[in-house]
Amino acid sequence: MRVAGIDLGGTKIQGVVVDEVTDRLGDGGADAVGIGAPGVIDRERGVVLRAPNLAIGEDLPLAALVAAATGAETVRLDNDVNVATLAEHRLGAARGHDDVLCVFAGTGVGGGLVLGGELRRGPHGLTGEIGHTIVRDGGRRCGCGGLGHLEAYAGRRCLEAEARRRHEGGQETALVRIAGNARMKSSTFSKALAAGDEVARELLDEAAEALGAALASAAALVDLSLIVLGGGVAEKLGAPFVAGVDAALQVRLFVPSMDLHVVPAALGDLGGAVGATLLVT
Amino acid sequence: MRVAGIDLGGTKIQGVVVDEVTDRLGDGGADAVGIGAPGVIDRERGVVLRAPNLAIGEDLPLAALVAAATGAETVRLDNDVNVATLAEHRLGAARGHDDVLCVFAGTGVGGGLVLGGELRRGPHGLTGEIGHTIVRDGGRRCGCGGLGHLEAYAGRRCLEAEARRRHEGGQETALVRIAGNARMKSSTFSKALAAGDEVARELLDEAAEALGAALASAAALVDLSLIVLGGGVAEKLGAPFVAGVDAALQVRLFVPSMDLHVVPAALGDLGGAVGATLLVT
Repeated sequence: MRVAGIDLGGTKIQGVVVDEVTDRLGDGGADAVGIGAPGVIDRERGVVLRAPNLAIGEDLPLAALVAAATGAETVRLDNDVNVATLAEHRLGAARGHDDVLCVFAGTGVGGGLVLGGELRRGPHGLTGEIGHTIVRDGGRRCGCGGLGHLEAYAGRRCLEAEARRRHEGGQETALVRIAGNARMKSSTFSKALAAGDEVARELLDEAAEALGAALASAAALVDLSLIVLGGGVAEKLGAPFVAGVDAALQVRLFVPSMDLHVVPAALGDLGGAVGATLLVT
Repeated sequence: MRVAGIDLGGTKIQGVVVDEVTDRLGDGGADAVGIGAPGVIDRERGVVLRAPNLAIGEDLPLAALVAAATGAETVRLDNDVNVATLAEHRLGAARGHDDVLCVFAGTGVGGGLVLGGELRRGPHGLTGEIGHTIVRDGGRRCGCGGLGHLEAYAGRRCLEAEARRRHEGGQETALVRIAGNARMKSSTFSKALAAGDEVARELLDEAAEALGAALASAAALVDLSLIVLGGGVAEKLGAPFVAGVDAALQVRLFVPSMDLHVVPAALGDLGGAVGATLLVT
Protein backbone atom coordinates (compact mmCIF):
# COMPACT_ATOMS: atom_id res chain seq x y z
CA MET A 1 0.00 0.00 0.00
CA ARG A 2 1.20 3.48 -0.87
CA VAL A 3 0.24 6.27 1.47
CA ALA A 4 0.23 10.00 0.80
CA GLY A 5 0.79 12.49 3.57
CA ILE A 6 -0.29 16.09 3.05
CA ASP A 7 0.61 19.10 5.17
CA LEU A 8 -1.92 21.79 4.40
CA GLY A 9 -0.44 25.15 5.31
CA GLY A 10 -1.50 28.77 5.04
CA THR A 11 1.16 29.63 2.44
CA LYS A 12 2.11 26.24 0.98
CA ILE A 13 1.01 22.63 0.72
CA GLN A 14 3.59 19.86 1.11
CA GLY A 15 3.18 16.17 0.37
CA VAL A 16 5.08 12.92 0.62
CA VAL A 17 4.24 9.42 -0.56
CA VAL A 18 5.39 6.54 1.59
CA ASP A 19 5.66 2.91 0.60
CA GLU A 20 4.50 1.25 3.78
CA VAL A 21 6.83 -1.74 3.49
CA THR A 22 10.08 0.09 2.84
CA ASP A 23 9.35 3.57 4.21
CA ARG A 24 10.67 4.83 0.88
CA LEU A 25 9.62 8.40 0.08
CA GLY A 26 8.50 8.92 -3.50
CA ASP A 27 6.10 10.91 -5.62
CA GLY A 28 3.71 8.32 -7.09
CA GLY A 29 -0.01 7.64 -6.49
CA ALA A 30 -1.49 6.54 -3.18
CA ASP A 31 -4.16 4.19 -1.83
CA ALA A 32 -4.65 6.15 1.36
CA VAL A 33 -4.21 9.78 2.28
CA GLY A 34 -3.48 11.44 5.62
CA ILE A 35 -3.86 15.19 5.94
CA GLY A 36 -2.61 17.57 8.58
CA ALA A 37 -4.50 20.87 8.58
CA PRO A 38 -4.27 23.94 10.79
CA GLY A 39 -7.21 24.82 13.00
CA VAL A 40 -9.91 22.86 14.76
CA ILE A 41 -10.53 19.43 13.30
CA ASP A 42 -13.34 16.90 13.72
CA ARG A 43 -11.28 13.74 13.20
CA GLU A 44 -14.24 11.35 13.30
CA ARG A 45 -16.01 13.09 10.42
CA GLY A 46 -12.88 14.35 8.63
CA VAL A 47 -14.07 17.94 8.78
CA VAL A 48 -12.12 21.18 9.21
CA LEU A 49 -14.39 22.98 11.65
CA ARG A 50 -12.46 26.23 11.76
CA ALA A 51 -9.10 27.25 10.25
CA PRO A 52 -8.53 31.02 10.49
CA ASN A 53 -5.30 30.73 8.46
CA LEU A 54 -6.98 28.98 5.50
CA ALA A 55 -9.56 30.81 3.40
CA ILE A 56 -11.95 27.85 3.36
CA GLY A 57 -14.87 28.94 5.52
CA GLU A 58 -16.26 26.68 8.23
CA ASP A 59 -17.16 22.99 8.42
CA LEU A 60 -15.28 21.92 5.31
CA PRO A 61 -15.67 18.11 4.77
CA LEU A 62 -12.09 17.89 3.53
CA ALA A 63 -11.63 14.12 3.90
CA ALA A 64 -14.74 13.35 1.82
CA LEU A 65 -13.73 15.90 -0.82
CA VAL A 66 -10.22 14.45 -1.14
CA ALA A 67 -11.57 10.88 -1.24
CA ALA A 68 -13.95 11.83 -4.06
CA ALA A 69 -11.26 13.70 -6.00
CA THR A 70 -8.52 11.06 -5.69
CA GLY A 71 -10.42 7.78 -5.41
CA ALA A 72 -8.37 6.96 -2.30
CA GLU A 73 -10.23 4.45 -0.11
CA THR A 74 -9.06 5.94 3.17
CA VAL A 75 -8.59 9.61 3.92
CA ARG A 76 -7.90 10.77 7.46
CA LEU A 77 -7.56 14.25 8.82
CA ASP A 78 -5.92 15.65 11.94
CA ASN A 79 -4.49 18.88 13.26
CA ASP A 80 -1.15 19.82 11.62
CA VAL A 81 0.69 20.17 14.92
CA ASN A 82 -0.59 16.80 16.12
CA VAL A 83 0.68 15.02 12.99
CA ALA A 84 4.07 16.74 13.24
CA THR A 85 4.23 15.60 16.86
CA LEU A 86 3.34 12.03 15.86
CA ALA A 87 6.15 12.14 13.30
CA GLU A 88 8.79 13.35 15.78
CA HIS A 89 7.61 10.78 18.33
CA ARG A 90 7.50 7.77 16.01
CA LEU A 91 10.27 8.61 13.51
CA GLY A 92 12.13 11.70 14.67
CA ALA A 93 13.89 13.31 17.61
CA ALA A 94 11.58 11.83 20.27
CA ARG A 95 11.86 8.15 19.29
CA GLY A 96 11.96 6.01 22.41
CA HIS A 97 10.51 8.71 24.66
CA ASP A 98 7.04 8.24 26.15
CA ASP A 99 6.53 11.67 27.71
CA VAL A 100 7.37 14.39 25.24
CA LEU A 101 6.31 17.91 24.45
CA CYS A 102 6.92 18.97 20.84
CA VAL A 103 6.90 22.72 20.31
CA PHE A 104 6.76 24.34 16.88
CA ALA A 105 7.71 28.00 16.75
CA GLY A 106 6.73 29.45 13.41
CA THR A 107 4.18 32.13 12.55
CA GLY A 108 2.58 31.20 15.84
CA VAL A 109 3.71 28.75 18.51
CA GLY A 110 1.95 25.38 18.69
CA GLY A 111 2.61 22.13 20.43
CA GLY A 112 1.72 18.49 20.78
CA LEU A 113 1.90 16.38 23.91
CA VAL A 114 2.73 12.69 24.09
CA LEU A 115 2.03 11.23 27.54
CA GLY A 116 2.61 7.59 28.41
CA GLY A 117 3.46 6.93 24.75
CA GLU A 118 0.14 8.25 23.42
CA LEU A 119 -0.66 11.55 21.75
CA ARG A 120 -2.94 13.34 24.17
CA ARG A 121 -6.01 15.07 22.75
CA GLY A 122 -8.08 16.00 25.80
CA PRO A 123 -11.80 16.46 26.45
CA HIS A 124 -12.10 19.42 24.04
CA GLY A 125 -9.40 18.22 21.59
CA LEU A 126 -7.36 21.28 22.56
CA THR A 127 -4.27 19.75 24.17
CA GLY A 128 -0.86 21.25 23.42
CA GLU A 129 -1.58 24.97 23.13
CA ILE A 130 1.78 25.79 24.70
CA GLY A 131 1.87 29.06 22.69
CA HIS A 132 -0.85 30.37 24.97
CA THR A 133 1.00 29.63 28.19
CA ILE A 134 1.09 32.84 30.22
CA VAL A 135 4.75 33.58 30.89
CA ARG A 136 4.32 37.18 32.01
CA ASP A 137 0.82 37.82 33.30
CA GLY A 138 -0.36 41.16 31.93
CA GLY A 139 2.56 41.34 29.48
CA ARG A 140 2.87 41.68 25.69
CA ARG A 141 -0.34 41.15 23.70
CA CYS A 142 -0.69 37.89 21.78
CA GLY A 143 -2.38 37.53 18.39
CA CYS A 144 -5.27 35.81 20.21
CA GLY A 145 -5.83 38.89 22.37
CA GLY A 146 -4.40 37.39 25.56
CA LEU A 147 -1.63 39.12 27.50
CA GLY A 148 1.85 37.76 28.16
CA HIS A 149 1.49 34.53 26.20
CA LEU A 150 4.55 32.65 24.99
CA GLU A 151 3.51 33.28 21.39
CA ALA A 152 3.59 37.05 21.98
CA TYR A 153 7.34 36.70 22.59
CA ALA A 154 8.31 33.76 20.37
CA GLY A 155 5.92 33.62 17.40
CA ARG A 156 7.17 35.11 14.12
CA ARG A 157 4.12 37.31 13.61
CA CYS A 158 4.36 38.83 17.11
CA LEU A 159 8.14 39.21 16.78
CA GLU A 160 7.58 41.18 13.58
CA ALA A 161 4.93 43.37 15.22
CA GLU A 162 7.28 44.14 18.12
CA ALA A 163 10.20 44.86 15.76
CA ARG A 164 8.05 47.34 13.81
CA ARG A 165 6.84 48.98 17.04
CA ARG A 166 10.45 49.49 18.11
CA HIS A 167 11.36 50.80 14.66
CA GLU A 168 8.50 53.28 14.80
CA GLY A 169 9.67 54.22 18.29
CA GLY A 170 12.99 55.27 16.76
CA GLN A 171 15.13 52.14 17.18
CA GLU A 172 17.22 51.36 14.10
CA THR A 173 17.01 47.70 13.08
CA ALA A 174 18.23 45.59 10.18
CA LEU A 175 14.96 43.64 10.46
CA VAL A 176 13.03 46.49 8.85
CA ARG A 177 15.88 47.31 6.41
CA ILE A 178 15.85 43.68 5.16
CA ALA A 179 12.08 43.14 5.12
CA GLY A 180 10.97 46.59 3.94
CA ASN A 181 7.21 46.56 3.91
CA ALA A 182 7.06 42.83 3.16
CA ARG A 183 6.51 40.12 5.77
CA MET A 184 9.51 39.44 8.03
CA LYS A 185 10.36 35.83 7.38
CA SER A 186 12.16 33.56 9.83
CA SER A 187 15.23 34.01 7.60
CA THR A 188 14.93 37.79 8.08
CA PHE A 189 15.55 37.22 11.76
CA SER A 190 18.52 34.89 11.20
CA LYS A 191 20.08 37.36 8.74
CA ALA A 192 19.63 40.34 11.05
CA LEU A 193 21.07 38.33 13.92
CA ALA A 194 24.08 37.32 11.80
CA ALA A 195 24.59 41.00 10.95
CA GLY A 196 24.83 41.83 14.65
CA ASP A 197 21.51 43.67 14.81
CA GLU A 198 20.74 44.66 18.38
CA VAL A 199 16.93 44.63 18.13
CA ALA A 200 16.98 41.14 16.59
CA ARG A 201 19.31 39.98 19.37
CA GLU A 202 17.06 41.42 22.07
CA LEU A 203 13.85 40.01 20.61
CA LEU A 204 15.30 36.55 20.10
CA ASP A 205 16.83 36.52 23.57
CA GLU A 206 13.38 37.37 24.94
CA ALA A 207 11.92 34.59 22.78
CA ALA A 208 14.36 32.03 24.20
CA GLU A 209 13.68 33.16 27.77
CA ALA A 210 9.91 33.02 27.22
CA LEU A 211 10.24 29.52 25.76
CA GLY A 212 12.38 28.49 28.74
CA ALA A 213 9.71 29.76 31.13
CA ALA A 214 6.81 28.06 29.35
CA LEU A 215 8.70 24.78 29.07
CA ALA A 216 9.69 24.85 32.75
CA SER A 217 6.02 25.36 33.67
CA ALA A 218 4.98 22.51 31.39
CA ALA A 219 7.60 20.21 32.90
CA ALA A 220 6.45 21.07 36.43
CA LEU A 221 2.83 20.33 35.56
CA VAL A 222 3.00 17.12 33.53
CA ASP A 223 6.57 15.82 34.04
CA LEU A 224 8.41 15.15 30.78
CA SER A 225 11.42 13.18 29.60
CA LEU A 226 12.17 15.21 26.46
CA ILE A 227 11.21 18.47 24.74
CA VAL A 228 11.51 18.79 20.94
CA LEU A 229 11.71 22.24 19.36
CA GLY A 230 10.92 22.77 15.67
CA GLY A 231 9.04 25.14 13.40
CA GLY A 232 10.25 27.79 10.97
CA VAL A 233 11.79 30.14 13.53
CA ALA A 234 13.67 27.35 15.31
CA GLU A 235 14.77 25.81 11.99
CA LYS A 236 16.18 29.04 10.58
CA LEU A 237 17.92 30.08 13.80
CA GLY A 238 19.30 26.57 14.22
CA ALA A 239 21.30 24.91 16.97
CA PRO A 240 22.41 28.09 18.82
CA PHE A 241 18.78 29.09 19.34
CA VAL A 242 17.76 25.62 20.56
CA ALA A 243 20.75 25.63 22.92
CA GLY A 244 19.68 29.07 24.18
CA VAL A 245 16.18 27.77 24.89
CA ASP A 246 17.63 24.74 26.67
CA ALA A 247 19.81 27.01 28.83
CA ALA A 248 16.76 29.17 29.63
CA LEU A 249 14.90 26.00 30.64
CA GLN A 250 17.70 24.61 32.81
CA VAL A 251 17.90 27.68 35.06
CA ARG A 252 14.13 27.49 35.58
CA LEU A 253 13.58 23.74 36.13
CA PHE A 254 11.83 23.07 39.43
CA VAL A 255 13.96 19.93 39.85
CA PRO A 256 17.25 20.81 38.11
CA SER A 257 18.47 17.23 38.36
CA MET A 258 15.55 15.81 36.37
CA ASP A 259 17.67 15.50 33.21
CA LEU A 260 15.20 17.17 30.86
CA HIS A 261 16.50 18.81 27.70
CA VAL A 262 15.36 20.64 24.61
CA VAL A 263 16.51 19.07 21.33
CA PRO A 264 15.91 20.19 17.75
CA ALA A 265 13.16 18.52 15.72
CA ALA A 266 14.66 15.91 13.39
CA LEU A 267 12.22 15.89 10.47
CA GLY A 268 12.34 19.57 9.60
CA ASP A 269 9.84 21.17 7.28
CA LEU A 270 8.51 17.81 6.01
CA GLY A 271 7.62 16.58 9.50
CA GLY A 272 3.98 17.50 9.05
CA ALA A 273 3.59 15.62 5.77
CA VAL A 274 5.47 12.59 7.10
CA GLY A 275 3.33 12.64 10.23
CA ALA A 276 0.16 12.80 8.13
CA THR A 277 1.06 9.42 6.60
CA LEU A 278 0.98 7.97 10.12
CA LEU A 279 -2.75 8.70 10.31
CA VAL A 280 -3.41 5.93 7.79
CA THR A 281 -0.65 3.39 8.51
CA MET B 1 -12.03 -5.37 55.80
CA ARG B 2 -11.43 -2.17 57.70
CA VAL B 3 -8.99 0.29 56.18
CA ALA B 4 -7.15 3.13 57.86
CA GLY B 5 -6.13 6.24 55.93
CA ILE B 6 -3.45 8.48 57.38
CA ASP B 7 -2.53 11.99 56.27
CA LEU B 8 0.93 12.69 57.59
CA GLY B 9 1.45 16.44 57.77
CA GLY B 10 4.15 18.78 58.98
CA THR B 11 2.09 20.09 61.89
CA LYS B 12 -0.57 17.41 62.42
CA ILE B 13 -1.46 13.82 61.58
CA GLN B 14 -5.04 12.97 60.59
CA GLY B 15 -6.59 9.56 60.23
CA VAL B 16 -9.86 7.94 59.21
CA VAL B 17 -11.00 4.33 59.31
CA VAL B 18 -13.27 3.16 56.53
CA ASP B 19 -15.45 0.06 56.52
CA GLU B 20 -15.06 -1.03 52.92
CA VAL B 21 -18.60 -2.35 52.59
CA THR B 22 -20.51 0.59 53.99
CA ASP B 23 -18.03 3.45 53.56
CA ARG B 24 -18.76 4.20 57.21
CA LEU B 25 -16.08 6.35 58.84
CA GLY B 26 -15.14 5.21 62.32
CA ASP B 27 -12.25 5.04 64.72
CA GLY B 28 -11.63 1.32 65.18
CA GLY B 29 -8.72 -0.93 64.17
CA ALA B 30 -7.71 -1.67 60.59
CA ASP B 31 -6.50 -4.55 58.43
CA ALA B 32 -4.86 -2.32 55.87
CA VAL B 33 -3.32 1.14 56.05
CA GLY B 34 -2.84 3.79 53.39
CA ILE B 35 -0.61 6.76 54.10
CA GLY B 36 -0.24 10.07 52.34
CA ALA B 37 3.05 11.80 53.13
CA PRO B 38 4.56 15.05 51.91
CA GLY B 39 7.72 14.90 49.84
CA VAL B 40 9.21 12.44 47.42
CA ILE B 41 7.90 8.91 47.79
CA ASP B 42 9.07 5.55 46.46
CA ARG B 43 5.68 3.88 46.20
CA GLU B 44 7.03 0.45 45.23
CA ARG B 45 9.17 0.18 48.33
CA GLY B 46 6.96 2.27 50.63
CA VAL B 47 9.81 4.62 51.44
CA VAL B 48 9.79 8.38 52.09
CA LEU B 49 12.88 9.38 50.10
CA ARG B 50 12.83 13.04 51.06
CA ALA B 51 10.35 15.13 53.03
CA PRO B 52 11.77 18.57 53.90
CA ASN B 53 8.67 19.42 56.01
CA LEU B 54 8.99 16.31 58.21
CA ALA B 55 11.95 15.91 60.55
CA ILE B 56 12.52 12.27 59.56
CA GLY B 57 15.76 12.31 57.59
CA GLU B 58 16.03 10.51 54.26
CA ASP B 59 14.98 7.09 52.99
CA LEU B 60 12.56 6.28 55.80
CA PRO B 61 10.93 2.85 55.20
CA LEU B 62 7.63 4.11 56.58
CA ALA B 63 5.36 1.38 55.18
CA ALA B 64 7.48 -1.39 56.73
CA LEU B 65 7.68 0.45 60.07
CA VAL B 66 3.91 0.96 60.20
CA ALA B 67 3.28 -2.69 59.21
CA ALA B 68 5.56 -3.88 61.99
CA ALA B 69 4.01 -1.53 64.57
CA THR B 70 0.36 -2.23 63.72
CA GLY B 71 0.35 -5.77 62.40
CA ALA B 72 -1.53 -4.55 59.31
CA GLU B 73 -1.02 -6.91 56.39
CA THR B 74 -1.00 -4.21 53.76
CA VAL B 75 0.50 -0.75 54.12
CA ARG B 76 0.78 1.52 51.11
CA LEU B 77 2.37 4.93 50.82
CA ASP B 78 1.92 7.77 48.34
CA ASN B 79 2.41 11.50 48.08
CA ASP B 80 -0.12 13.50 50.15
CA VAL B 81 -1.26 15.64 47.24
CA ASN B 82 -1.75 12.58 45.05
CA VAL B 83 -3.97 10.90 47.62
CA ALA B 84 -6.01 14.07 48.13
CA THR B 85 -6.45 14.25 44.35
CA LEU B 86 -7.54 10.60 44.24
CA ALA B 87 -10.11 11.38 46.92
CA GLU B 88 -11.58 14.39 45.11
CA HIS B 89 -11.67 12.42 41.85
CA ARG B 90 -13.24 9.26 43.21
CA LEU B 91 -15.40 10.63 46.05
CA GLY B 92 -15.37 14.41 45.94
CA ALA B 93 -15.85 17.44 43.71
CA ALA B 94 -14.38 15.82 40.58
CA ARG B 95 -16.55 12.69 40.50
CA GLY B 96 -17.43 11.84 36.92
CA HIS B 97 -14.66 13.98 35.42
CA ASP B 98 -11.80 12.28 33.59
CA ASP B 99 -9.51 15.27 33.04
CA VAL B 100 -9.07 17.20 36.25
CA LEU B 101 -6.46 19.33 37.91
CA CYS B 102 -6.74 19.48 41.71
CA VAL B 103 -4.88 22.38 43.28
CA PHE B 104 -4.22 22.66 47.00
CA ALA B 105 -3.22 26.11 48.21
CA GLY B 106 -1.91 25.85 51.74
CA THR B 107 1.55 26.53 53.15
CA GLY B 108 2.73 25.92 49.59
CA VAL B 109 0.74 25.21 46.45
CA GLY B 110 0.61 21.62 45.19
CA GLY B 111 -1.47 19.77 42.67
CA GLY B 112 -2.51 16.45 41.25
CA LEU B 113 -3.48 15.73 37.66
CA VAL B 114 -6.04 13.16 36.51
CA LEU B 115 -5.88 12.60 32.75
CA GLY B 116 -8.12 10.17 30.93
CA GLY B 117 -9.47 9.02 34.29
CA GLU B 118 -6.05 8.05 35.68
CA LEU B 119 -3.86 9.86 38.18
CA ARG B 120 -0.80 10.87 36.17
CA ARG B 121 2.59 10.36 37.77
CA GLY B 122 5.10 10.94 34.98
CA PRO B 123 8.59 9.65 34.19
CA HIS B 124 10.13 11.23 37.31
CA GLY B 125 7.02 10.89 39.51
CA LEU B 126 6.86 14.70 39.61
CA THR B 127 3.55 15.45 37.89
CA GLY B 128 1.32 18.18 39.29
CA GLU B 129 3.76 20.79 40.56
CA ILE B 130 1.40 23.58 39.55
CA GLY B 131 2.80 25.73 42.38
CA HIS B 132 5.98 26.09 40.36
CA THR B 133 4.28 27.32 37.22
CA ILE B 134 5.96 30.57 36.20
CA VAL B 135 3.23 33.20 36.07
CA ARG B 136 5.48 36.24 35.98
CA ASP B 137 8.92 35.37 34.66
CA GLY B 138 11.52 37.13 36.81
CA GLY B 139 8.89 38.03 39.42
CA ARG B 140 8.50 37.40 43.17
CA ARG B 141 10.84 34.80 44.68
CA CYS B 142 9.37 31.41 45.58
CA GLY B 143 10.39 29.29 48.57
CA CYS B 144 12.15 26.96 46.11
CA GLY B 145 14.37 29.81 44.88
CA GLY B 146 12.62 30.22 41.52
CA LEU B 147 11.24 33.57 40.37
CA GLY B 148 7.61 34.39 39.61
CA HIS B 149 6.14 31.02 40.56
CA LEU B 150 2.46 30.67 41.41
CA GLU B 151 3.41 29.62 44.96
CA ALA B 152 5.27 32.92 45.45
CA TYR B 153 1.90 34.69 45.07
CA ALA B 154 -0.55 32.14 46.45
CA GLY B 155 1.21 29.99 49.05
CA ARG B 156 0.59 30.90 52.69
CA ARG B 157 4.30 31.03 53.57
CA CYS B 158 5.11 33.36 50.68
CA LEU B 159 2.03 35.49 51.40
CA GLU B 160 3.25 35.91 54.95
CA ALA B 161 6.76 36.84 53.82
CA GLU B 162 5.35 39.46 51.43
CA ALA B 163 3.01 40.86 54.11
CA ARG B 164 5.95 41.24 56.51
CA ARG B 165 8.06 42.88 53.81
CA ARG B 166 5.28 45.42 53.21
CA HIS B 167 4.90 45.96 56.95
CA GLU B 168 8.62 46.62 57.28
CA GLY B 169 8.35 48.96 54.30
CA GLY B 170 5.91 51.05 56.32
CA GLN B 171 2.52 49.67 55.22
CA GLU B 172 0.10 49.21 58.10
CA THR B 173 -1.63 45.82 58.04
CA ALA B 174 -3.98 43.89 60.28
CA LEU B 175 -2.10 40.74 59.21
CA VAL B 176 0.85 41.65 61.42
CA ARG B 177 -1.38 43.03 64.20
CA ILE B 178 -3.27 39.71 64.38
CA ALA B 179 -0.30 37.38 63.96
CA GLY B 180 2.29 39.30 65.96
CA ASN B 181 5.52 37.39 65.70
CA ALA B 182 3.74 34.06 65.35
CA ARG B 183 3.04 32.33 62.04
CA MET B 184 0.30 33.90 59.94
CA LYS B 185 -2.30 31.19 59.60
CA SER B 186 -4.79 30.91 56.76
CA SER B 187 -7.40 32.19 59.24
CA THR B 188 -5.22 35.27 59.84
CA PHE B 189 -5.74 36.16 56.20
CA SER B 190 -9.49 35.58 56.30
CA LYS B 191 -9.80 37.66 59.49
CA ALA B 192 -7.76 40.56 58.08
CA LEU B 193 -9.79 40.45 54.90
CA ALA B 194 -13.04 40.53 56.85
CA ALA B 195 -11.70 43.56 58.74
CA GLY B 196 -11.19 45.39 55.45
CA ASP B 197 -7.40 45.28 55.58
CA GLU B 198 -5.96 46.70 52.39
CA VAL B 199 -2.73 44.71 52.33
CA ALA B 200 -4.63 41.44 52.82
CA ARG B 201 -7.02 42.46 50.02
CA GLU B 202 -4.13 43.27 47.66
CA LEU B 203 -2.19 40.10 48.41
CA LEU B 204 -5.23 37.84 48.04
CA ASP B 205 -6.28 39.58 44.82
CA GLU B 206 -2.78 38.92 43.49
CA ALA B 207 -3.08 35.31 44.66
CA ALA B 208 -6.35 34.85 42.77
CA GLU B 209 -4.92 36.45 39.62
CA ALA B 210 -1.79 34.27 39.80
CA LEU B 211 -3.95 31.17 40.25
CA GLY B 212 -6.06 32.23 37.27
CA ALA B 213 -2.94 32.63 35.14
CA ALA B 214 -1.43 29.28 36.13
CA LEU B 215 -4.72 27.46 35.62
CA ALA B 216 -5.24 29.05 32.19
CA SER B 217 -1.77 27.90 31.17
CA ALA B 218 -2.46 24.40 32.47
CA ALA B 219 -5.76 24.26 30.58
CA ALA B 220 -4.07 25.39 27.36
CA LEU B 221 -1.39 22.72 27.70
CA VAL B 222 -3.30 19.61 28.76
CA ASP B 223 -6.99 20.48 28.18
CA LEU B 224 -9.16 19.92 31.25
CA SER B 225 -12.83 19.48 32.05
CA LEU B 226 -12.70 20.64 35.69
CA ILE B 227 -10.39 22.33 38.17
CA VAL B 228 -10.78 21.67 41.91
CA LEU B 229 -9.34 24.13 44.42
CA GLY B 230 -8.68 23.12 48.00
CA GLY B 231 -6.04 23.49 50.73
CA GLY B 232 -5.97 25.57 53.89
CA VAL B 233 -5.91 28.99 52.23
CA ALA B 234 -8.79 28.16 49.87
CA GLU B 235 -10.77 26.50 52.70
CA LYS B 236 -10.48 29.46 55.06
CA LEU B 237 -11.21 32.09 52.42
CA GLY B 238 -14.12 30.01 51.16
CA ALA B 239 -16.47 30.44 48.21
CA PRO B 240 -15.69 34.13 47.43
CA PHE B 241 -12.01 33.26 46.93
CA VAL B 242 -12.78 30.26 44.70
CA ALA B 243 -15.17 32.45 42.68
CA GLY B 244 -12.43 35.08 42.34
CA VAL B 245 -10.00 32.47 41.05
CA ASP B 246 -12.62 31.22 38.60
CA ALA B 247 -13.20 34.77 37.34
CA ALA B 248 -9.43 35.25 36.94
CA LEU B 249 -9.35 32.00 34.93
CA GLN B 250 -12.29 32.88 32.69
CA VAL B 251 -10.74 36.12 31.42
CA ARG B 252 -7.54 34.24 30.59
CA LEU B 253 -8.91 31.05 28.97
CA PHE B 254 -7.47 30.57 25.48
CA VAL B 255 -10.83 29.18 24.35
CA PRO B 256 -13.37 31.04 26.51
CA SER B 257 -16.20 28.80 25.33
CA MET B 258 -14.55 25.63 26.64
CA ASP B 259 -16.77 25.54 29.73
CA LEU B 260 -13.99 25.00 32.26
CA HIS B 261 -14.54 26.10 35.84
CA VAL B 262 -12.89 26.16 39.24
CA VAL B 263 -14.93 24.52 42.00
CA PRO B 264 -14.11 24.13 45.69
CA ALA B 265 -12.77 20.81 46.95
CA ALA B 266 -15.54 18.76 48.56
CA LEU B 267 -13.68 16.71 51.15
CA GLY B 268 -12.01 19.52 53.04
CA ASP B 269 -9.26 18.92 55.50
CA LEU B 270 -9.90 15.17 55.68
CA GLY B 271 -9.46 14.66 51.93
CA GLY B 272 -5.89 13.46 52.36
CA ALA B 273 -6.78 10.81 54.93
CA VAL B 274 -9.81 9.67 52.94
CA GLY B 275 -7.68 9.49 49.80
CA ALA B 276 -5.06 7.44 51.62
CA THR B 277 -7.66 4.71 52.20
CA LEU B 278 -8.04 4.47 48.42
CA LEU B 279 -4.45 3.25 48.17
CA VAL B 280 -5.50 -0.05 49.77
CA THR B 281 -9.08 -0.50 48.55
